[in-house]
Amino acid sequence: MKIEILKENLKNALNITQGLTSSSLTLPILNNILLSTEKNFLKLSSTNLETGINCWVLAKIEKEGKTTIPAKLFNNFVSFLPDKKIILTVKDNILFINCENYKTQIKGINPEEFPIIPQVKDKENYLEVDIFSFIQGLNRVIEICSPNQIRPELSGVFLCFQKKLIKIVATDSFRLAEKTLFLEKEINQEYSLILPQKSARELINIFSEKKGELKIYFSPNQIFFSSLLNETFHSQVQLTSRLIEGEYPDYQEIIPKTYKTQIILHKSEFLNQLRVASLFSGKVKEVRLKIDPKMQTLEMFTQSPEIGENRSSIPGKIKGEKVEISFNYKFLIDGLLNLESQEVIFELNGEDGAAVLKSLNDPNYLYVVMPIKSG
Amino acid sequence: MKIEILKENLKNALNITQGLTSSSLTLPILNNILLSTEKNFLKLSSTNLETGINCWVLAKIEKEGKTTIPAKLFNNFVSFLPDKKIILTVKDNILFINCENYKTQIKGINPEEFPIIPQVKDKENYLEVDIFSFIQGLNRVIEICSPNQIRPELSGVFLCFQKKLIKIVATDSFRLAEKTLFLEKEINQEYSLILPQKSARELINIFSEKKGELKIYFSPNQIFFSSLLNETFHSQVQLTSRLIEGEYPDYQEIIPKTYKTQIILHKSEFLNQLRVASLFSGKVKEVRLKIDPKMQTLEMFTQSPEIGENRSSIPGKIKGEKVEISFNYKFLIDGLLNLESQEVIFELNGEDGAAVLKSLNDPNYLYVVMPIKSG
Repeated sequence: MKIEILKENLKNALNITQGLTSSSLTLPILNNILLSTEKNFLKLSSTNLETGINCWVLAKIEKEGKTTIPAKLFNNFVSFLPDKKIILTVKDNILFINCENYKTQIKGINPEEFPIIPQVKDKENYLEVDIFSFIQGLNRVIEICSPNQIRPELSGVFLCFQKKLIKIVATDSFRLAEKTLFLEKEINQEYSLILPQKSARELINIFSEKKGELKIYFSPNQIFFSSLLNETFHSQVQLTSRLIEGEYPDYQEIIPKTYKTQIILHKSEFLNQLRVASLFSGKVKEVRLKIDPKMQTLEMFTQSPEIGENRSSIPGKIKGEKVEISFNYKFLIDGLLNLESQEVIFELNGEDGAAVLKSLNDPNYLYVVMPIKSG
Repeated sequence: MKIEILKENLKNALNITQGLTSSSLTLPILNNILLSTEKNFLKLSSTNLETGINCWVLAKIEKEGKTTIPAKLFNNFVSFLPDKKIILTVKDNILFINCENYKTQIKGINPEEFPIIPQVKDKENYLEVDIFSFIQGLNRVIEICSPNQIRPELSGVFLCFQKKLIKIVATDSFRLAEKTLFLEKEINQEYSLILPQKSARELINIFSEKKGELKIYFSPNQIFFSSLLNETFHSQVQLTSRLIEGEYPDYQEIIPKTYKTQIILHKSEFLNQLRVASLFSGKVKEVRLKIDPKMQTLEMFTQSPEIGENRSSIPGKIKGEKVEISFNYKFLIDGLLNLESQEVIFELNGEDGAAVLKSLNDPNYLYVVMPIKSG
């Protein structure tokens, strides 16, 4: 192999592919990126066996070939190079790098050992979504997935494609987040699937701050995401992921359709007081709330025998019944951080019922949270 | 105790005193800050038994008293409070805090258990230095101290006060840094002492980005630093430190008075190439340099049997003999980071002799580094 490539293009492609490589002692090839030539492109591939990424980037191919190179070392090294042309040559699985006043050799591993990354078979059947909205949707649910051995279906993000909308859902059985996205074109067939959290995280890493359309291809055990990234550099990216087997719980049942108490309050003040409360809440992370329509305030109380106690209050618009209820403060903070408006709605259903947090101005995102059962 | 204090003033004073508190399991009182009243001031004190800090900050004292409070919790808590007046009350070693819509209690420890922090005895005998220059001088040597059990004198910063100058020195026996500061007034007596690294670090934490004069008081086993910080808030800070016993080595002998080879080169390019070299240098961290007056370049070479190898070169102005020499790349990087000019002078004394790094425009800072002995 002998190619010529711009440092910036190579660096961008390495940033996209490096995320999936790990420090595997049992399978050292998984630490490596596969470099290969394909027409006028250098192709970079990485995989963790569950997820795979292919990235094609424009290069001047003088001689075809391939090898695999330790990803982290190569990416670190390239980031120090001057913004110039880089000449990459491969002989006997050693990568020779020439760039201005650097002459470097990096030892590779035989590319025949590199696992095969599945390719899209049916290239005609796909669905297009706006990258920004889809990635933002994933971002607002992903942290709630639970790495659950007993219930592996909760360890991924549930994606449900129905006619003109996509539901993006995650739950750890204590709380649940649901984002609804609307599609421009109606889809013929309905799909639902569970995407591993790691694959969702890689999609976010690759595509956050990118613009354009993301093509989604479905197959029985796999999903493919593909996009051109012409804006930033002449390249194409494809992410392939296996799906999590199993039935996602019928989560719609958990979402309360009504409420007994509703309070509208300032998000930043609510967050701030929860953070103060957290300092006094001890190991159970319990914060006690008292919401009284007569007072038009939410009162917050935490206590720890070793540390001390804290009381605070926030004004709010309250409707419905008076309620005293306990939550894990972390679950409330996580939910509030996913809401985008300054004013938030907090709806409660008695001291044992599920509560809902949502933005005042966005009906398409819901965060459901269970209280800590009283005594 | 009952006092009223502005949040900003309390927060500043906590930031100054918290650094010294630790998470001591054997002596829990060392996690705490001593709060006490003194005339119109709240006094905050912290200690690690080697170093002590007192900080006085303006407050409205309604009733005198004292207690000790967990430093980290109290500082975290205060940082969340609104920028308003805070009322602090102490009853039975519980601190009651009232601020706008917060009502809080924090459990303290009996102040009688708090260690005594030594005070300046001879208040007339001191020396004044410019805070900015002194702190910057400490900053440029502090990381070189060595936490050496066998030679405890190397674990601190050597301060040598002579007539119109201060020498600030640190060494770990592989390298040595010396900064010379000039005083406005000549001092009558000469002093030299070894300041523990932790105390030097606290001085940097407290006084970096501060302006004004720092008063230094000497006593046989202790040193006191004191300053008014009126600019930021109405307060005074005092740091007391024990000194490290023992004789500091006669380091002047190590500093080469001449050179066999001199090269003047670009600092940022030298740093960048050393960082690249570090990726290929393996465990001994060895980088090989070849400096040849005929070529007017510095050539750099590193190699690791597992990883690969790297060669690079930097143009420079070279005088004297040709030399091939090996260094620990980290020692060169540390030295370069302490130099302030874009162009640096690197002077060598054969493949086994001490080398010197210095700025082209600053004769008052020297960094001496020993090469890795060849074969």
